[in-house]
Amino acid sequence: MTDTTRELIRSTASHATRARAPAKKPWQGWLDAELGFRNHWYPAALSSHIAEGAARGVTLLGEEILLTRQDGRLFAVEDRCCHRGVRFSARPLFYTRDTVTCWYHTWTYDLETGRLFTILTEPQAPIIGKCGLKPYPVTEAQGAVFIFIGDIEPPELSSDVPPGFLDDNIAVAAVEPYDIKANWRLACENGYDPGHHFIHNWSKLCIDADAPVPFGWVTSREDIAKTTHYETREPGPKGFTRTIAHTEMPFEATIPAKGDRAEVTVRPPLAEGKSPDVLAAAQADAEHGKVGLWLPCGLKVEDWPFKDVWHVEFYVPKDAGTHTYFQFGCKRVADETARRRWLESEHAELWKAIPDDFTGEDAFARENMEKFYAEEDGWHRERLFRPDIELTMWRRFASEHARGIQTRDHAKGVARP
Amino acid sequence: MTDTTRELIRSTASHATRARAPAKKPWQGWLDAELGFRNHWYPAALSSHIAEGAARGVTLLGEEILLTRQDGRLFAVEDRCCHRGVRFSARPLFYTRDTVTCWYHTWTYDLETGRLFTILTEPQAPIIGKCGLKPYPVTEAQGAVFIFIGDIEPPELSSDVPPGFLDDNIAVAAVEPYDIKANWRLACENGYDPGHHFIHNWSKLCIDADAPVPFGWVTSREDIAKTTHYETREPGPKGFTRTIAHTEMPFEATIPAKGDRAEVTVRPPLAEGKSPDVLAAAQADAEHGKVGLWLPCGLKVEDWPFKDVWHVEFYVPKDAGTHTYFQFGCKRVADETARRRWLESEHAELWKAIPDDFTGEDAFARENMEKFYAEEDGWHRERLFRPDIELTMWRRFASEHARGIQTRDHAKGVARP
Amino acid sequence: MTDTTRELIRSTASHATRARAPAKKPWQGWLDAELGFRNHWYPAALSSHIAEGAARGVTLLGEEILLTRQDGRLFAVEDRCCHRGVRFSARPLFYTRDTVTCWYHTWTYDLETGRLFTILTEPQAPIIGKCGLKPYPVTEAQGAVFIFIGDIEPPELSSDVPPGFLDDNIAVAAVEPYDIKANWRLACENGYDPGHHFIHNWSKLCIDADAPVPFGWVTSREDIAKTTHYETREPGPKGFTRTIAHTEMPFEATIPAKGDRAEVTVRPPLAEGKSPDVLAAAQADAEHGKVGLWLPCGLKVEDWPFKDVWHVEFYVPKDAGTHTYFQFGCKRVADETARRRWLESEHAELWKAIPDDFTGEDAFARENMEKFYAEEDGWHRERLFRPDIELTMWRRFASEHARGIQTRDHAKGVARP
Repeated sequence: MTDTTRELIRSTASHATRARAPAKKPWQGWLDAELGFRNHWYPAALSSHIAEGAARGVTLLGEEILLTRQDGRLFAVEDRCCHRGVRFSARPLFYTRDTVTCWYHTWTYDLETGRLFTILTEPQAPIIGKCGLKPYPVTEAQGAVFIFIGDIEPPELSSDVPPGFLDDNIAVAAVEPYDIKANWRLACENGYDPGHHFIHNWSKLCIDADAPVPFGWVTSREDIAKTTHYETREPGPKGFTRTIAHTEMPFEATIPAKGDRAEVTVRPPLAEGKSPDVLAAAQADAEHGKVGLWLPCGLKVEDWPFKDVWHVEFYVPKDAGTHTYFQFGCKRVADETARRRWLESEHAELWKAIPDDFTGEDAFARENMEKFYAEEDGWHRERLFRPDIELTMWRRFASEHARGIQTRDHAKGVARP
Repeated sequence: MTDTTRELIRSTASHATRARAPAKKPWQGWLDAELGFRNHWYPAALSSHIAEGAARGVTLLGEEILLTRQDGRLFAVEDRCCHRGVRFSARPLFYTRDTVTCWYHTWTYDLETGRLFTILTEPQAPIIGKCGLKPYPVTEAQGAVFIFIGDIEPPELSSDVPPGFLDDNIAVAAVEPYDIKANWRLACENGYDPGHHFIHNWSKLCIDADAPVPFGWVTSREDIAKTTHYETREPGPKGFTRTIAHTEMPFEATIPAKGDRAEVTVRPPLAEGKSPDVLAAAQADAEHGKVGLWLPCGLKVEDWPFKDVWHVEFYVPKDAGTHTYFQFGCKRVADETARRRWLESEHAELWKAIPDDFTGEDAFARENMEKFYAEEDGWHRERLFRPDIELTMWRRFASEHARGIQTRDHAKGVARP
Repeated sequence: MTDTTRELIRSTASHATRARAPAKKPWQGWLDAELGFRNHWYPAALSSHIAEGAARGVTLLGEEILLTRQDGRLFAVEDRCCHRGVRFSARPLFYTRDTVTCWYHTWTYDLETGRLFTILTEPQAPIIGKCGLKPYPVTEAQGAVFIFIGDIEPPELSSDVPPGFLDDNIAVAAVEPYDIKANWRLACENGYDPGHHFIHNWSKLCIDADAPVPFGWVTSREDIAKTTHYETREPGPKGFTRTIAHTEMPFEATIPAKGDRAEVTVRPPLAEGKSPDVLAAAQADAEHGKVGLWLPCGLKVEDWPFKDVWHVEFYVPKDAGTHTYFQFGCKRVADETARRRWLESEHAELWKAIPDDFTGEDAFARENMEKFYAEEDGWHRERLFRPDIELTMWRRFASEHARGIQTRDHAKGVARP
């Protein structure tokens, strides 16, 4: 256990283990980050969305951005003309490989710097070179396009994605990203949450596989400390990995007697009728895995849903009530042939259906939390329990290590550095 | 006439009879009760909606409530898990006849008290027994389920429904309840309003029956005093009954001459071409009836639409801009055979169509008032006339006798007693 | 050049020609007029919408108005009963040629004065004659109905429409008006904007005609002064006419070299492949025209789209985010036969399709500006360039010469004179 892990448990566990949690929360940054953490890289699109010459308007942390690929090079600039504010993406127009021209009055911007480069009807206008669009650092990896939202010199992309995601020798199957009507922080918490597994009893993937899914994961505070490793090294990525070992996965529970009703023993739907051996095997199988969250909004699940495959998700803030859900299935491969073979296999096919078959249940849970947190003071009113220690640790860690907070003025483009 | 009736006329009539009404309104409680009156019983569903084992999420006075029937017993609890705020009704889960288990993290609540009873994955959690859902008193009568919204010891249901509605020997035909986009107070006022009858000239029921409908009801202040009985006895119900006697129902009116245009005599659409005898008969027929409002939001119309049948309505506050409309047709019957015979008769069939055939016109009128009262300062800007005395009497009476005012904090669940 | 024109250029040009415009804007009235200019005439409907006996609810500058024609006479009154605020237009009821009767409680108003004239059920009510609807001056011309929104004695309609629109000897083809989701001021500016022509490269009309459309219009400050005539004579109309002469219409432009990329010469889509002669002819043809804006919200384009035909548009404020778009094609004709002949000709047929074929591109541009101006501080954040001088001149002129500003209280009907 790192000192960081120990300190995170020490400073946050009381919020999840006492019947009455302290009123003051040691994770103010998390409370403030309704629109996301600023000064980080975020996935913005799949590479396949941005063919040569194509353009796409995307919204990240409330900022509207034009994304295009010109002569093989990706560009991302503020999607709002300085002149009258129209969106370039409404009618994208690229007369050269390094400029975008506004469809309304021909203001033409340098795609690299964002500066106003010329105006076709008035090439001598004094404003040329004197105003510009916010340019966004943009890069591409593993079939996805990443944009840096912030004001500082961007670190390497590797600082902001789960470890290993950028490794050369992996094959990556991507899910078509989609929007979910819930704040991105609820998505982070749901994605990792050791207590959330119960919902997957209703996931088609598990039902079709007749795979037992427990009521949740149960781990002692001591075992959390042993199995969790928080990573704080510069330049990152910062986050944690938790091995699933020392985790109980109850497939049976008891509801105590009350009045004339006897105690009742219950099982989750998919554990009904399963033998102890089958249940033990399911638990043993799960214990191979590792899972963890990484700044700004990534989840990595190792050995899931198959041995040697890992699942990476990003919960990208779009606006206060919406996040865009990116999901990737990764597998280490020896060479290009193996890569192609895997991507064409039944296993990789799984990712095409995963929102319907598995993570749709997660989306359902996130959307169900939204009203409570957005309108009913949920961030202060929630009552936590032991499995939530792992979330409070993350909340505090994220509050300390995120590089900034996105504000409403940032989102509108009126807060410039 | 009771002293209450006399006092209500005395203190409110000037608001409806003077060309300029006093600015200060003696019905502040009515103005404040945008979300309803607290500490009252309300219909929440039809019994048929809650079969054994079934569950339904309902919203009353802004409060979201889970309603279920387990082993024949009805329960109603706050529909929001203490933990992360999700709605149980999104995936209702009852492992025993006296508990609800959250589909997200297995927090399991006692349906009777609302207390957190156990957590399937962590039965030793210190929070068990230390937090809970708001439990709602719930009961059932005449084919409907009633919930008490408030903080006090609930009185008998009979205190909050129109007199006679709970009588043993009646048969009750229920309309499928539905939501109307208007504040509940506008519904109360429209339902009773002696001046509103004109709109039923456009009701299919009246058109099909070729039944004359007047321009409205006209009653002198003295006759209102004679025919109106306000009931204030504890424990209630509190409200009034007005006999229709001494009420004129004009089927003809005059628009005075202006300029070179002569005076014009006009009739409501359904009085056109009818003989004086037919019109007199229609009035005589209506005078048999009685009508009145009852706290918190019930209307009773006797001898309507048939002799010996009475219509009961409830305008249940859902949110500030919506009420749920419950309608019942009641008839006194001698025994179970008579009850069944009546419910299968053509007469009782009428209630299946009544929203389309009759009260749809009332819904239209309520929705038409909504913008004025919600956005245009209508409560202070309205100009009243004599028939409105009966509404101002009710406003004042309700302000004084309602047991409390529902606030926005109550609706969000953040104002606990 | 009038002194007004000279002064407008002098006082506003720096806002459009300097790289950094002065922070203080000399057009405060324009900034304040989100809901329109008060005390002006506006088109409210086409004459064909208001057949004898018909009624229509319209919304102008946020005010809801009932418009009807009775015995050939037009009336316009506040569409909101004094009593309970319902809209007459929901079920219009006219028992005489000079009154409207509310469908709810028979309150009957004089259509001319708006005063409460009688109540059918209570003709002795003291409130009769003591309250009323706001009556609106209404008139009709060239196939359209105009309403005056304001508190002052209305001037002649001719004061508020582009010059010549009311001439006797013209034939007018009207487009069915429709709502566009953009503030009316953005519509005024788009409609006139010398820089906006580029968008018509995507207009079906131009594509079908294979007519070259330039990148925009380019005119020197000196030439603007020479070609623009601002009219301030009482009683109006107030506005300006600009002759298109001395205007360049670039069909070719250069994007400067950058790095290893050479300079690029570009053309608008519809200029591609056209000979210099064809382009010169297109410019020469356009130079015949004249165009100008007129208070409160009218545009006049002369010699467009055909010689001797002129196009008149009105951008009528509906609410803060919507305007209603009226368009008319006008031609001078010798007599009634010529009038009918023209209205049945192919030329006049054009107006039936103009929103799809031509001005749809303008609607697209206006809607695209809306978010910037409504939510992103666009009115202070926009950066202008030389062609915008003509807009800043108009903004200042309109700020000075409009007869008033419409407020939110006016729109709700709570601010009475």
